[in-house]
Amino acid sequence: MAKEPKKLDDLFLDTLKDIYFAEKKILATLPKMVKAAQSPELKKAFEKHRGETEGQVKRLEQVFGIIDKKPQAKKCDAILGIAKEGEEIMREFKGSPALDAGLLSAAQAVEHYEISRYGTLKTWANDLGHPDAARLLDATLQEEKKTDAALTQIAEAVVNQEAA
Amino acid sequence: MAKEPKKLDDLFLDTLKDIYFAEKKILATLPKMVKAAQSPELKKAFEKHRGETEGQVKRLEQVFGIIDKKPQAKKCDAILGIAKEGEEIMREFKGSPALDAGLLSAAQAVEHYEISRYGTLKTWANDLGHPDAARLLDATLQEEKKTDAALTQIAEAVVNQEAA
Repeated sequence: MAKEPKKLDDLFLDTLKDIYFAEKKILATLPKMVKAAQSPELKKAFEKHRGETEGQVKRLEQVFGIIDKKPQAKKCDAILGIAKEGEEIMREFKGSPALDAGLLSAAQAVEHYEISRYGTLKTWANDLGHPDAARLLDATLQEEKKTDAALTQIAEAVVNQEAA
Repeated sequence: MAKEPKKLDDLFLDTLKDIYFAEKKILATLPKMVKAAQSPELKKAFEKHRGETEGQVKRLEQVFGIIDKKPQAKKCDAILGIAKEGEEIMREFKGSPALDAGLLSAAQAVEHYEISRYGTLKTWANDLGHPDAARLLDATLQEEKKTDAALTQIAEAVVNQEAA
């Protein structure tokens, strides 16, 4: 029998596994960023986001449940590339007054990756007739947008003036 | 003599090289996405973005000029990771009704990476006293945001309904 062509529900599941991998990678990376950050405000922002990320992982597990699948991670090359750039900054700018600016830039690249993925997943969940999943994905999307806005504020108000 | 610690202008230059690499990679990838797209509307959107990307590369070259540097690309692991995911989708969903949805999701991940980088670079250009560079970077930032909004509209209105 010929294999069925892949459909939107396959794409949804693939992308869900991708962002599940990404969230776990972020959860593992955030404590390093808390430790590296120089400004107390930035440390606090990263710590807060770590707590939120734990909740976001749980929401993803609920979404897997809604579509009757076991939570499973699939290697996400995008987040690995973004994280690698962040690690380079931590190494190359260690002890530099510009370190926090670099950490902020790395964190905002992560936020934007997540914003794009959750936006896509939310649209697909609605198309596939899973409004409860769409609501969970949207809750995380709104959190990520808030985090990004908070990081922009820190970048403009505090860190870059120290770094210049 | 000990090496000077790295500063914000080093970070600015590094990040400029990173996005210059990314834009060139995007320029090389867009024709493949035009070719792969099934809906005429999506093909047209990718074609339009290819033209814009050429202008964005030129703006980056102007920014290099403003800070008295030659345009130079530096390997950007983030865009390579994002592009790799896009290529996987083109391969795995070839011939699938969900292909366009996948292409849109890949394109929006790229847009969001650029939005984060141009936002960061614009803030830093202002901090470093290069308002002309900040204006150029902001012009591209606004284009990327418009492209992302246009892709969201296509995703919601056309492609996903075909794919479901």
